[in-house]
Amino acid sequence: MTTPSRRELANAIRFLAIDGVEAAKSGHPGMPMGMADIAEVLWNDYHSHNPANPKWSNRDRFVLSNGHGSMLQYALLHLSGYDLSIEELKRFRQLESKTPGHPENFMTPGVETTTGPLGQGFANAVGFALAEKLLAQRFNRPGLDVVDHRTWVFMGDGCLMEGISHEAASLAGTWGLGKLVAFWDDNGISIDGQVEGWFTDDTPARFEAYGWRVIRDVDGHDADRIKAAIEAALAHDDRPTLICCRTTIGYGSPAKAGKESSHGAPLGKDEVVATRQGLSWAHEPFVVPQPIADAWRATDAGAEREAKWNALMERYAAEYPEQAAELQRRMRCELPRDFSAAADAYIAKLQAEGPVVASRKASQMAIEAYAPLLPELIGGSADLAHSNLTLWKGSQPVTGTSPDANYINYGVREFGMTAIANALSLHGGFLPYDATFLVFSDYARNAVRMSALMQSPGIHVYTHDSIGLGEDGPTHQPVEHLASLRYIPNNDVWRPCDAVETAVAWKAAIERRDGPSCLVFSRQNLQHQPRDAQQVRDIARGGYVLKEAKGTPEIILIATGSEVELATAAAEQLGENVRVVSMPSTDVFERQDAAYRESVLPRAVRKRVAVEAGVTGFWRQYVGLDGAVVGIDTFGASAPAGELYKHFGITVEAVVAAARAL
Amino acid sequence: MTTPSRRELANAIRFLAIDGVEAAKSGHPGMPMGMADIAEVLWNDYHSHNPANPKWSNRDRFVLSNGHGSMLQYALLHLSGYDLSIEELKRFRQLESKTPGHPENFMTPGVETTTGPLGQGFANAVGFALAEKLLAQRFNRPGLDVVDHRTWVFMGDGCLMEGISHEAASLAGTWGLGKLVAFWDDNGISIDGQVEGWFTDDTPARFEAYGWRVIRDVDGHDADRIKAAIEAALAHDDRPTLICCRTTIGYGSPAKAGKESSHGAPLGKDEVVATRQGLSWAHEPFVVPQPIADAWRATDAGAEREAKWNALMERYAAEYPEQAAELQRRMRCELPRDFSAAADAYIAKLQAEGPVVASRKASQMAIEAYAPLLPELIGGSADLAHSNLTLWKGSQPVTGTSPDANYINYGVREFGMTAIANALSLHGGFLPYDATFLVFSDYARNAVRMSALMQSPGIHVYTHDSIGLGEDGPTHQPVEHLASLRYIPNNDVWRPCDAVETAVAWKAAIERRDGPSCLVFSRQNLQHQPRDAQQVRDIARGGYVLKEAKGTPEIILIATGSEVELATAAAEQLGENVRVVSMPSTDVFERQDAAYRESVLPRAVRKRVAVEAGVTGFWRQYVGLDGAVVGIDTFGASAPAGELYKHFGITVEAVVAAARAL
Repeated sequence: MTTPSRRELANAIRFLAIDGVEAAKSGHPGMPMGMADIAEVLWNDYHSHNPANPKWSNRDRFVLSNGHGSMLQYALLHLSGYDLSIEELKRFRQLESKTPGHPENFMTPGVETTTGPLGQGFANAVGFALAEKLLAQRFNRPGLDVVDHRTWVFMGDGCLMEGISHEAASLAGTWGLGKLVAFWDDNGISIDGQVEGWFTDDTPARFEAYGWRVIRDVDGHDADRIKAAIEAALAHDDRPTLICCRTTIGYGSPAKAGKESSHGAPLGKDEVVATRQGLSWAHEPFVVPQPIADAWRATDAGAEREAKWNALMERYAAEYPEQAAELQRRMRCELPRDFSAAADAYIAKLQAEGPVVASRKASQMAIEAYAPLLPELIGGSADLAHSNLTLWKGSQPVTGTSPDANYINYGVREFGMTAIANALSLHGGFLPYDATFLVFSDYARNAVRMSALMQSPGIHVYTHDSIGLGEDGPTHQPVEHLASLRYIPNNDVWRPCDAVETAVAWKAAIERRDGPSCLVFSRQNLQHQPRDAQQVRDIARGGYVLKEAKGTPEIILIATGSEVELATAAAEQLGENVRVVSMPSTDVFERQDAAYRESVLPRAVRKRVAVEAGVTGFWRQYVGLDGAVVGIDTFGASAPAGELYKHFGITVEAVVAAARAL
Repeated sequence: MTTPSRRELANAIRFLAIDGVEAAKSGHPGMPMGMADIAEVLWNDYHSHNPANPKWSNRDRFVLSNGHGSMLQYALLHLSGYDLSIEELKRFRQLESKTPGHPENFMTPGVETTTGPLGQGFANAVGFALAEKLLAQRFNRPGLDVVDHRTWVFMGDGCLMEGISHEAASLAGTWGLGKLVAFWDDNGISIDGQVEGWFTDDTPARFEAYGWRVIRDVDGHDADRIKAAIEAALAHDDRPTLICCRTTIGYGSPAKAGKESSHGAPLGKDEVVATRQGLSWAHEPFVVPQPIADAWRATDAGAEREAKWNALMERYAAEYPEQAAELQRRMRCELPRDFSAAADAYIAKLQAEGPVVASRKASQMAIEAYAPLLPELIGGSADLAHSNLTLWKGSQPVTGTSPDANYINYGVREFGMTAIANALSLHGGFLPYDATFLVFSDYARNAVRMSALMQSPGIHVYTHDSIGLGEDGPTHQPVEHLASLRYIPNNDVWRPCDAVETAVAWKAAIERRDGPSCLVFSRQNLQHQPRDAQQVRDIARGGYVLKEAKGTPEIILIATGSEVELATAAAEQLGENVRVVSMPSTDVFERQDAAYRESVLPRAVRKRVAVEAGVTGFWRQYVGLDGAVVGIDTFGASAPAGELYKHFGITVEAVVAAARAL
């Protein structure tokens, strides 16, 4: 074999994908076969990475937004020399392999983000590109561009149909993310067939309307045309680029090319044989001939790239030692050493001062206290900054040129916001907080789920947390949302009862390294609760005894957020044998050891009442069949908050009555 | 006073809005003040309705997608003569008034859909226009256009930023909904301020890319220009129209016009005085001078319109009596009389035959059995038709010209799909079912919530309901979704265990008149369960004894869907004193009387094990602190389904062990 042709290099991807799907007896061969030529040109000629160090901070980010084509990415990672053996490719879609059905950032080296839920990978890519731009703005110095990398994203028709593509593309255009290049796999096919019946957008015109540079009509199977398009994209840095690639899904399959039958199922034994013949690929399954393997291997080039960057970084560190240390700290996602103690001091001060404020206001106070210590903190809101109270004195909009830019006006784009924030975290260098009303967490919900699945630190701020929102009415009043967010695995939900718990929740969310936190705050003022030092420490355990009974408690009242003050007032009326448990985070409480949990909620005490302005069913796990729950299982209504609490029976009297009826 | 000027008519809206917000001490005056001139022209010169009969089937539909401007709509309804007194406007945002903070279809005559969660009203409008088009296609005859009305929608920048606007606008363009006219309130302001920093789309170009007709640069305060734009929109019927209206938010307020401060708070006493002076409105709060009130009143014109249509309908009924009766039946949302008995017969036949199929397949069988009886049934899927199994033999795409068009390829647009389906139901004439994978109910979640809030019949089909989905992995495997959907108030979730329960669930969902149902189905095959006739009848109660213990049960196993067969197998091993309860719908079960619930789950029996491949916390309300739950509280994984069930410990052995450990 002479030097392999580009088509042969691309065919290596095609057949690894075909063989992987065939071995798994499930998967999506059509997309890798269709995008192989594009991927080959991009990865071999442009993608700047180092297979030996997938965490090299200045690598280009590659995102496969159409993640069902995961075998494309696994083939690329394997061929270019990542720690992803051919054995792993043979175990595609098997338990605990590094090659799951969709790319998972926590399972496979070189996978930047988990994709599969369509459109979110594209939004992640926008977030990656924003992170690069902001870090460059903050850290680069003349001649020392230590932050200088690109974001490449593959996307299909499905991604483009999803609403989130609109939200993310619009922001990318507004932000002028010139180092973002998106490749549209324009194959005219989605799962239900030819897209003419349901997808007739003029997509190039649409992206131009967002301020993107659009390169039209690129033959996605012609390496020269692909290369020319990428060159054109790289020629300017002022706007993001969409490269429109006409491709054939299942390219190379005699019977299934161009058809939806190649999308989501193995080609089948006979068709695999026919495809091997058609593409002149005479090799056994999973065998890549040495010359082709050699041509693909990017380890030397990668090592060279990183070495070159290391040298640059050394020069930078010599000239700007503090900035270099700070950049490295931030890219390691390590908090400043003094943060924890400073936060504790702030919390102790708050406990002593006892401000009576809405927890959304207490949240803003916490941001004001913590943010000066955390240059990595980057905030934002979906057009509710003055309601969510997410701005602080040091907020600088990312649309400006400030090196300290740290605040994003996301506009009314909850889903795009959350997926972009997820990527700011995944990129490294940032700890994002985003915000909207709790009820509109619905719009963002799958991105919250993705942050939890990806074990990605990040803070979702949700204010106006109940019928306490008042006059805006049931469309704006969450009822089921607290329970629903708590049920997302690996998602820590906090609903603090006063300014002190709010400050503790913010600290916990900032310090959490393996997943997101949802911080849920009230619109209305909340009483300050008295606590001794041990109680203040125990807030961080998610649930604790806020008010102790005399002797063994006969009754336990459990509450969160704005209802804690109802519980303490009810306890006053019920007498000395009542314990009040404040439970700001059931998720965190459930992670405590059994002895601690038993000390807070002794198994033997069965007279329990939970009170929360949300669905009651959730609290049955704490009060059992013999307890009671004061809450709301219907939609709210439009009226002043105080009237609503009375109308829906979430009152001190209701708690007292429920406890007495046990 | 002479004949009032158009500006005076519009000012009546402005001051009712100003005064309403002022009285409520909360609300959004800016939008009504900005859009008053547009609304005045539209309602006085074009909107075809009859205030005395808000349910007149051939009325134009008016949607306020920027629903925070609700006082605009209340002013229009009051002024034109709907049953909405000035006293109700004075009680804006008060408990049980007909003027809640956001428009609620179930509280106010003339409000077609509940709006407030941005973008959804626009998607609803697309659904209304589609309903009209399909009904016209089905029922109109030459010279007898008994279905012939328009849909008008007001939308703000917020609606346009939301992703759902992309999904809905794209479909409206593809479907060529020529009777849909959208008015963009282009005021350059959103809550966070001037939108330049976060909303720089070329919106007209974007909508042209969707195939819309766009009328640019209309002065939204010039009645003649507005009128000319509407005339231009009505001149063609082939495409939907976007009219871009430049407006000033808070128009008329000397200090707050054009500023975000007019958006979401009362103007304040002094500013109200200044606005009255500026706009020469010398009238007391809530007083509309008689000549202006007279000019607004649309009751006579409305009665005339409906009378004219009644005459047309009489001619139609004379010539096409069957079609007329059918149209009227469908617009009343009444099911055919024979449906219930036919469905019961089908259910009995299934119980006798006992097919072993996946419940998604059983769902398709149910559609196949019921749909021929229900011409109002209109299906669709978000590009997963062949996985959701939502097509049946009679399916006809809505993109064709068939009078029987009843199937919508929504593309990959879960949120837009659901909001459009909600409107098909609200319009009358249709019972919609939409479909996607259960995990992607996340994308549609707030529209599901809206269908429940709006008490709107409709069926959300969610297949691939657990880790049983297998190889696609955790992004595609629901874990928390069943619990989360059940917690949405007024939403009935069904998860059937076999083909018989599936047929019952479909029947219940079809017959439900006051809210939506989510039908949740397996990817994998499910065993058939034996039942006697009473048990078959009891399925409709949501939970029932599937397998009785000998004597008083010592242990009760509770299960749903694919886990019912695990429970029955476990019961075999555990012995005769075990009862198995199948609980396809906890929502429906909770509506049963206490005696029935006690008969199924006797309070005294505390040895209870629930098993469901989802979060365990939800089931604590049925097993209490002393019971056990077999489920999954982490994300799933990518592997064949059978292996996953073993890996996550959802097995017969686990159920047996849990029961024995009690």
